[in-house]
Amino acid sequence: MYILHDNTESGNAYKVRLLLAQLGEPYRTIQYDVTNGETRTPEFLNRINSNGRIPVVEFPDGRFLAESNAILYYFAQGSDFFPTDRWDQAEVMRWMFFEQYSHEPFVAVAKFILTMLPPDSPRRADIPALHEKGYAALQIMEDRLQDHDYLVGDKYSIADIALFAYTHVAEMGEFDLSPYPAIRTWIKRITQTPGFIPMYPEDWKK
Amino acid sequence: MYILHDNTESGNAYKVRLLLAQLGEPYRTIQYDVTNGETRTPEFLNRINSNGRIPVVEFPDGRFLAESNAILYYFAQGSDFFPTDRWDQAEVMRWMFFEQYSHEPFVAVAKFILTMLPPDSPRRADIPALHEKGYAALQIMEDRLQDHDYLVGDKYSIADIALFAYTHVAEMGEFDLSPYPAIRTWIKRITQTPGFIPMYPEDWKK
Repeated sequence: MYILHDNTESGNAYKVRLLLAQLGEPYRTIQYDVTNGETRTPEFLNRINSNGRIPVVEFPDGRFLAESNAILYYFAQGSDFFPTDRWDQAEVMRWMFFEQYSHEPFVAVAKFILTMLPPDSPRRADIPALHEKGYAALQIMEDRLQDHDYLVGDKYSIADIALFAYTHVAEMGEFDLSPYPAIRTWIKRITQTPGFIPMYPEDWKK
Repeated sequence: MYILHDNTESGNAYKVRLLLAQLGEPYRTIQYDVTNGETRTPEFLNRINSNGRIPVVEFPDGRFLAESNAILYYFAQGSDFFPTDRWDQAEVMRWMFFEQYSHEPFVAVAKFILTMLPPDSPRRADIPALHEKGYAALQIMEDRLQDHDYLVGDKYSIADIALFAYTHVAEMGEFDLSPYPAIRTWIKRITQTPGFIPMYPEDWKK
């Protein structure tokens, strides 16, 4: 069985949990407290991921695959969650690289600072700059979603999963999603896809 | 013919120039002065890339593909530069996402600040933090390359192209590559691959 090296607060890890749930792929998780340095121990760095990050998937044969979007790519191959058209495949990649470069470093990091660090953390000073860049990323998504149901083609794919993870909890980083109606409709649409599981089961509000 | 919306100082754009050269794919380029806001004009944002970045490839049918590593992925399909094995394909993705999240924002940005901004730029204060994180990324590459010729499998791929682009000019960002002998050997190995073209033709030192 696959082992997901996981953290419940990580949107990057949730991407993997969501895809594996929608694929019906069984796995078990090992949880790490990221703020406590549990992914920076010598054991973790030597055996699991030298980059000191989760998620990592451990395969039954003992191999490890890091980087959330690479994991999505691996598991989505040959499934309904990855398009067959070459152009659409490239567009999935375009959105996934956009997510890691232009969205996650701002939308996810604001959530991290505001929910995981103490209220007197000096990193709170970063919030205005994170909001500015995060809103720019949200606007790019809004523009696409104003006349499309999903990010690529007409179909739900790992591009949507990759962007959904931190977008749907952007308010935890004090982003206001009310000026983004297309994003809010898309979030609701994704929660209605078959096999959807929430990031925070106990807190989920319908 | 393909049009590459390009900038000669951009390692991300050079990735595309290198792959297209090695594929023997003809294209023409349009150059943008990034520091002058030429990729942030309304025309560029509306027509070419709403994210305001190069490289972007314009296809003969008028479509645009953004994100350097998504462009590599598109053109490498079915070529020797993308593996056929599913695990190796995922590892290519793992290294390309590593590049955009854990390498480029530090190694490339240090080069940008030190070579493109004025010497009294306040962003020079970021250099120590960029060096710390950039060296961490270089060490991860060094560990892999100590006992492998290339980043994935035994073969040159777009993972190498993606990481080569900014690594081989890391010294322009005042990174010292002397403690990374495996990286230095790998850089030399890549310059000897068939069809290789340098990033800066006129300045290239053998």
